[in-house]
Amino acid sequence: MSGRPSPEELRRKIVEVVSKTGGHLASSLGAVELSLALADVFDPEIDRILWDVGHQTYAWKLLTRRRKPFSTLRQFGGESPFANPDESEADAFVAGHAGNALAAALGMAVARDARGGGENIVAVVGDASLANGETLEALNNCAALTKKIILVVNDNAMAISPSRGAMARFLGKLISNVRYNRVKAAAEAAGHRLKLTFLRKTYHSIEQTVKSIWLGNAFFERFGLRYVGPVDGHDLEALKDALTVAKEDKRGVVVHVITEKGKGFHPAEANPSRWHGTGPFNLADPSAQSAGPSKAGWSEVFGDALAEEARRDHRVCAVVAAMKDGTGLADFAREFPRRLFDMGISESCAVTFAAGLAKAGARPVVAIYSTFLQRAFDQIMHDVCIMNLPVVFAIDRAGCVGADGRTHHGMFDIPMLRCLPNISIVQPRDAAALKAMLQAAFVRGGPVAIRWPRGTPEDVPVSNAPLEWGCAEQLIAPNARVQLWALGDQVPKAMAATKLLSARGIEAGVVDARFVKPFDAKLLARQRAAGAFVASLENGAVAGGFGEAIGADAKFGWPDKFVCHGTPAELEREFSFTAEDVAKGIASMLGKAGG
Amino acid sequence: MSGRPSPEELRRKIVEVVSKTGGHLASSLGAVELSLALADVFDPEIDRILWDVGHQTYAWKLLTRRRKPFSTLRQFGGESPFANPDESEADAFVAGHAGNALAAALGMAVARDARGGGENIVAVVGDASLANGETLEALNNCAALTKKIILVVNDNAMAISPSRGAMARFLGKLISNVRYNRVKAAAEAAGHRLKLTFLRKTYHSIEQTVKSIWLGNAFFERFGLRYVGPVDGHDLEALKDALTVAKEDKRGVVVHVITEKGKGFHPAEANPSRWHGTGPFNLADPSAQSAGPSKAGWSEVFGDALAEEARRDHRVCAVVAAMKDGTGLADFAREFPRRLFDMGISESCAVTFAAGLAKAGARPVVAIYSTFLQRAFDQIMHDVCIMNLPVVFAIDRAGCVGADGRTHHGMFDIPMLRCLPNISIVQPRDAAALKAMLQAAFVRGGPVAIRWPRGTPEDVPVSNAPLEWGCAEQLIAPNARVQLWALGDQVPKAMAATKLLSARGIEAGVVDARFVKPFDAKLLARQRAAGAFVASLENGAVAGGFGEAIGADAKFGWPDKFVCHGTPAELEREFSFTAEDVAKGIASMLGKAGG
Repeated sequence: MSGRPSPEELRRKIVEVVSKTGGHLASSLGAVELSLALADVFDPEIDRILWDVGHQTYAWKLLTRRRKPFSTLRQFGGESPFANPDESEADAFVAGHAGNALAAALGMAVARDARGGGENIVAVVGDASLANGETLEALNNCAALTKKIILVVNDNAMAISPSRGAMARFLGKLISNVRYNRVKAAAEAAGHRLKLTFLRKTYHSIEQTVKSIWLGNAFFERFGLRYVGPVDGHDLEALKDALTVAKEDKRGVVVHVITEKGKGFHPAEANPSRWHGTGPFNLADPSAQSAGPSKAGWSEVFGDALAEEARRDHRVCAVVAAMKDGTGLADFAREFPRRLFDMGISESCAVTFAAGLAKAGARPVVAIYSTFLQRAFDQIMHDVCIMNLPVVFAIDRAGCVGADGRTHHGMFDIPMLRCLPNISIVQPRDAAALKAMLQAAFVRGGPVAIRWPRGTPEDVPVSNAPLEWGCAEQLIAPNARVQLWALGDQVPKAMAATKLLSARGIEAGVVDARFVKPFDAKLLARQRAAGAFVASLENGAVAGGFGEAIGADAKFGWPDKFVCHGTPAELEREFSFTAEDVAKGIASMLGKAGG
Repeated sequence: MSGRPSPEELRRKIVEVVSKTGGHLASSLGAVELSLALADVFDPEIDRILWDVGHQTYAWKLLTRRRKPFSTLRQFGGESPFANPDESEADAFVAGHAGNALAAALGMAVARDARGGGENIVAVVGDASLANGETLEALNNCAALTKKIILVVNDNAMAISPSRGAMARFLGKLISNVRYNRVKAAAEAAGHRLKLTFLRKTYHSIEQTVKSIWLGNAFFERFGLRYVGPVDGHDLEALKDALTVAKEDKRGVVVHVITEKGKGFHPAEANPSRWHGTGPFNLADPSAQSAGPSKAGWSEVFGDALAEEARRDHRVCAVVAAMKDGTGLADFAREFPRRLFDMGISESCAVTFAAGLAKAGARPVVAIYSTFLQRAFDQIMHDVCIMNLPVVFAIDRAGCVGADGRTHHGMFDIPMLRCLPNISIVQPRDAAALKAMLQAAFVRGGPVAIRWPRGTPEDVPVSNAPLEWGCAEQLIAPNARVQLWALGDQVPKAMAATKLLSARGIEAGVVDARFVKPFDAKLLARQRAAGAFVASLENGAVAGGFGEAIGADAKFGWPDKFVCHGTPAELEREFSFTAEDVAKGIASMLGKAGG
């Protein structure tokens, strides 16, 4: 137990590194004492601690032999942004998407029981993830499948935005019930410093009784788990006590821990949403620093465009899953507070909810990051596409997202969606095209997916031709033998590649594909008939992607691997997806083909 | 209220038609009085009734102007197997996959509130669907988003198998608490026939108080919904009372209805699982009839093969989502009761749970129908593939499923999975190949998906060569100019097509592709080098499918449309996917190409 850094040291280190690398600051600062208590009460290399989402694990990383690599956080080749079992045995399971920890922990507990192992399995789940459907499914199965599992609810009353819905209110009630807290304070004064196990147990069983009577706190007990808490998540001794009780109990236990997002770093305490994820900032004057991981160019363009549509048409509304700010809809929410629905981390429900809105006459836009929309594949197919409902999917962070790495890249939305009947899929090359596509999607009706990457649109020195449904736009050199079909943000790269090809004596045209589905089969057929060599460029997985849809001769995109973290430029170099790689690849294929 | 058929008449009609057409008998028999009460208390053409899953809606169909078409149930061109808004305004939303009704109802309620409408929105959700993550996400959002929604919990304590998990136990406790039921009986004797609204309200508010004190029934109230019940689901007057109370209440209300699956048809009452779905049977002697929708040839082969593996390796176990019998694992469960985990209708959780098992050293097989595996796309990517965990996906009902129609065809698993790094995808052509592939998957490690269709393997008159990872098998005519790459159950069709081609003077070879991923690129390259025309045959969507992966010149499979219900033979004819269509298509392409 000796030799551990103090909470203050950990916080200092976290703030110092994140000020240089950027990262998920507020959540990690809130979980410092919890990490210390977990590392003390459990053995990180034997017991299995599963951090849901994993963006709150910076202290955990520092406590589990990663003090040195921590300064490389989120850098290419450096420490992962989230929990990562490839990096350390202390990270028991992959994390990044909310809601998986309890289900994975349950699997590990059942496997342990089958082999008669003795390790503890602990899932640390935020209050926002607790309301996720997968967590609730796992909660429902817990008691039937294992006698012993520990669920730590890390309750900071926030997802990225404040938590919503009934679970949040219910947890709030547990915390705020005055009569109960008074009793608890008394019980704590009497009991919680006592180190003898039996006394600790007695204390908690008194506490439990009190709670059951006064709070009717049967929620977790309904699921067969003993409830311990609420515990002050910044009181290290109280945390260790509660976790020890949980460890010693023979049953499944929920430990309800109350933490403050951003704890110990004043700017983040004051504005935890703004400091949830941050870019690098000046330690001497944090307030001067731009908050947020990016300037959200694409997202802001979308937010403005949607607000414009909403002003025109009162049926237009927005559905988000705990990502109002990230998807660029903060201003929209201020202007139309009753037309933005934040469903919390409930992507499945959000999509079906939007389908219900559409069926009843509204015109919803579901704004979800590409990687999280994977949670709603079935709902898109079953609840939206079968009935051909007018739901627009605003897919942000489509393609490479940079430093958030393999769990967060939006590589799979094109293959996921393009197999579904009735849906259209488009990608704008710039801000004007995004606005035109959004407008056209509302006119069109039916399901339309519009995807764009993280970051800011680049300028393309060719003005947009009017948008026609299913039509691509030839930007340059329609008669060139080589034609580059580029999707959205890849248009500037295609333009750059033509110059590099030209330097090699190969003339190439560029098509702004615009539509993944329905793609412009007529233009393609014309080019094929003229003997063109067709290459595709897309910010997404090549397997099942746009290039395969058009049967391109050369397909440029992300390979059949999980792409790590780094800057987009570093990753494009690493995975041979720069303009130079495109030009080289085409030249070599043409050379081989004798072109 | 007059002119409605009696429950007995409805049951007679349902049993009579299903004895001819086959269908979902037990659930629909259980919901007869509930359908009558809903049709009486609400206006099916103005109020919106959403039946979750929709296989319990036969009485509802009969009550909403579909008495005549009902005799064509599940037939090609006839009445849909599930609720279907294209068929009747009275079917408010598409149904088929469990757990969507409350989320869709919530969307409809919010749209109604926005436009100031007065219609009632009612979601009818089975107890098994109540434990589905999407339902729980919707429940969590209900109270925050609308003042008025009605959730009817149709509680028969069964999914297809008996319901599992804590929710089921909790609902059971509500029903079985003796002290409470005694009070309720007294209250009912005094109150429930009174037709005056205020008295009815008083009665229910007394009931509510009683319950809150004695049962601590705060579960639904935690979610901001008033609880009414439990109500005898076969007492029409009690049902109408409870629904009227729910309709008149200004708040969101849960009506908890207790029904018996198979009610009124003795064989189904005695064995509701066996009569959940049934083929046609002899009304005069139902017991002589084979139960179940098919003889489950493929499923049985899989069940036997898995049991064999489990006998060899104690780490092998199975995870199912309320489909133990349908996936062929009933015998496995009897032989290895502690090695089969039924997670209920919780596909997302089931996959992550399996990943947890695998991470902790077990060798799980997740057996889920293709269409329902869509619920777990994100979990397959995030929890299984990133860590390259040894999880085997046994994908039953892959491809056309026949009479269950558009919500149940397994058309999209290949596009969904093949974009994911680390996963392998295989399809056996016969029973021996399935066994070999399952065995090889365990040896291989990493994620492996094995898919097979509904029905029984056909014999192929060529014996299997040993399975090598990533290798296809050339069955006939390796040097023919036309090569048919057929996947799994399409091998016999490819063989038949070669005969039809031969009659047209075109020699064609057949490749049993075996692997969708990694496909046999070497064999393909050899054939391409020899100038072969390559055609693909797959029982799945062409868009994003196997044919695109190998860049086939002609791709045969299911078109970019939602495929309706009918027998597989009827649907293959309708969508031009017979052996004759394949031969004709190839001949015409070769003709055009001058071959």
